[in-house]
Amino acid sequence: MLLEPETELASQPSQTVFKTLQQVLEEDLKAVDKVILETVSGFTDLIPRIVSYLIESGGKRLRPSLALLVAKMFGYEGARKYPLASAVEFIHTATLLHDDVVDESLLRRGQPSANVTFGNKPSILVGDFLLAQSLQLMIKDGDPKILAIFGNTASILTEGEIIQLEKLHDISLSEADYLKIIHAKTAELFSSSCHIGAVLGSTNAHDHKALACYGYHFGIAFQIVDDALDYVASEKDLGKAVGDDFREGKMTLPVIHAYSKATKEEKAFFERCIAHRFQEDGDLDKAIAILNTYGSIDYCLGMANEHAAKAEASLEQFKQLQYCSLLIDLLDFCVNRAY
Amino acid sequence: MLLEPETELASQPSQTVFKTLQQVLEEDLKAVDKVILETVSGFTDLIPRIVSYLIESGGKRLRPSLALLVAKMFGYEGARKYPLASAVEFIHTATLLHDDVVDESLLRRGQPSANVTFGNKPSILVGDFLLAQSLQLMIKDGDPKILAIFGNTASILTEGEIIQLEKLHDISLSEADYLKIIHAKTAELFSSSCHIGAVLGSTNAHDHKALACYGYHFGIAFQIVDDALDYVASEKDLGKAVGDDFREGKMTLPVIHAYSKATKEEKAFFERCIAHRFQEDGDLDKAIAILNTYGSIDYCLGMANEHAAKAEASLEQFKQLQYCSLLIDLLDFCVNRAY
Repeated sequence: MLLEPETELASQPSQTVFKTLQQVLEEDLKAVDKVILETVSGFTDLIPRIVSYLIESGGKRLRPSLALLVAKMFGYEGARKYPLASAVEFIHTATLLHDDVVDESLLRRGQPSANVTFGNKPSILVGDFLLAQSLQLMIKDGDPKILAIFGNTASILTEGEIIQLEKLHDISLSEADYLKIIHAKTAELFSSSCHIGAVLGSTNAHDHKALACYGYHFGIAFQIVDDALDYVASEKDLGKAVGDDFREGKMTLPVIHAYSKATKEEKAFFERCIAHRFQEDGDLDKAIAILNTYGSIDYCLGMANEHAAKAEASLEQFKQLQYCSLLIDLLDFCVNRAY
Repeated sequence: MLLEPETELASQPSQTVFKTLQQVLEEDLKAVDKVILETVSGFTDLIPRIVSYLIESGGKRLRPSLALLVAKMFGYEGARKYPLASAVEFIHTATLLHDDVVDESLLRRGQPSANVTFGNKPSILVGDFLLAQSLQLMIKDGDPKILAIFGNTASILTEGEIIQLEKLHDISLSEADYLKIIHAKTAELFSSSCHIGAVLGSTNAHDHKALACYGYHFGIAFQIVDDALDYVASEKDLGKAVGDDFREGKMTLPVIHAYSKATKEEKAFFERCIAHRFQEDGDLDKAIAILNTYGSIDYCLGMANEHAAKAEASLEQFKQLQYCSLLIDLLDFCVNRAY
């Protein structure tokens, strides 16, 4: 039985939003898991093994959930949503696999990442395979509108990964460049997930645009919070090691902000740690102290909240629809998580 | 001016087939290069740099040439062939980039491979980007038949890469498994290139099937010859180091054949070199000597010629068409190259 989130949620603490969402989408998410497992079954052994490992590692299926929930809000209950939501999750999983190889990550969602468990080579090739499968699912659906969204997202996403690599240790990275990078690596797929849900449930181009806009700002807010948490959350909360971005010398918003305010000496510190990647014990703590001096984490969370507000504003015209409030609660939950 | 290959080629040595092909396809290949360069221009610096490096490294554009020549044989002269032939080349280039990372290759076409020149990370991410661009070109074309070919090829190709990795040092690899692997890694894209050309130029499903079949057998023959040449050609001829497959412990047809005939002692030698990858100076020469004892290279070339004959037979019904003989000459040239 589906919950009536509008009445239920008012009295629920935000931590239970995911639970409510999972109840509302329980059948849908089961159907998506079924498509995912069926799609990879029958292929050579290593493929289902790696995919099961990733699926069972506790990913929240946020992107397919967005596609499913948006479709539901527009009253779409057909079967096309399952392969399309699965395709979105495949793209996400493929980028995680390649990201972890490129970033030389050790942990993902609190357990050894696939590149550690299976090696870099299988991670690269299974990533390619999952991209091919997402493509197969989109092609089988056949809707030119959805194919166009997919092609555009693939292009933006893959260019963004390269820009991120080019600018990785660039101490002069601007806020605008940072936003371009997180648009590509996170917000674009959030946006296209919502966009696909809207195309399934509505023929109105304004609806499509509004939902793509909601997804975009949600994704930007989500990534900014993620980057901020890397300097505050504990490993247990985040499911990855705290300070990863700092140790990898990755320029993210907290450091961009602090660097812009920093003294000459503090600037030299960041240049040594980020640009030259010469780090010593205690440098992460020192970086966190500088961030605190300038209120850089608050600055990030403020910007995340601005984007969350824009995302919510995109849904204004849908507030009378069932499940719209759940989209807003989900946004709030993701932006206000774990701090 | 286009040559009339039917009359011209009879008196030409096979080495000039590529030259004739390049003359016949000169304008088409220029248009393809233009699409390729336009597609990657405007993106972040690293992308056009790596793509130019690859394009200028002397690749023969064999796959787009197949698509273009087949389209030409069926009288198709429209503009759709350029982006589609470019898409095929992008897929090929993307797989080279990822292959070279996975194989830890040092040379490609006689010069340092992209992973050596630019690093593994850019090679992985630019490979992803090129796949996304090939997808964009196919989606913009929009023909569901061509999208279906593309999706199917992507699926077979990416699974094949994984099977190849799984079976890399498997001394018990069967000939059937080997053929499955080279179908995926080589013959499938040859086949779909020809298939796409046929879809452009003919509405007849039998024509599509015949050309896909020609491409498939051409690709199988091509890869078998490539694998045989790795044990006989000089580095200069092959554009890659001789004995690469052996040093990497890759089971290919020459060793599969020799191993099946080998004495107990020779079997132990291959097991040490391939399965355990414990190799000493002189092992490559010893392997070549064993291959010669059992006529393994001749066996490979014989099998390549059988597939070439099947490819040629697929074209039987098109022999009256202009350019059909050039497809046959190209096949002969590729199968009889450099030995």
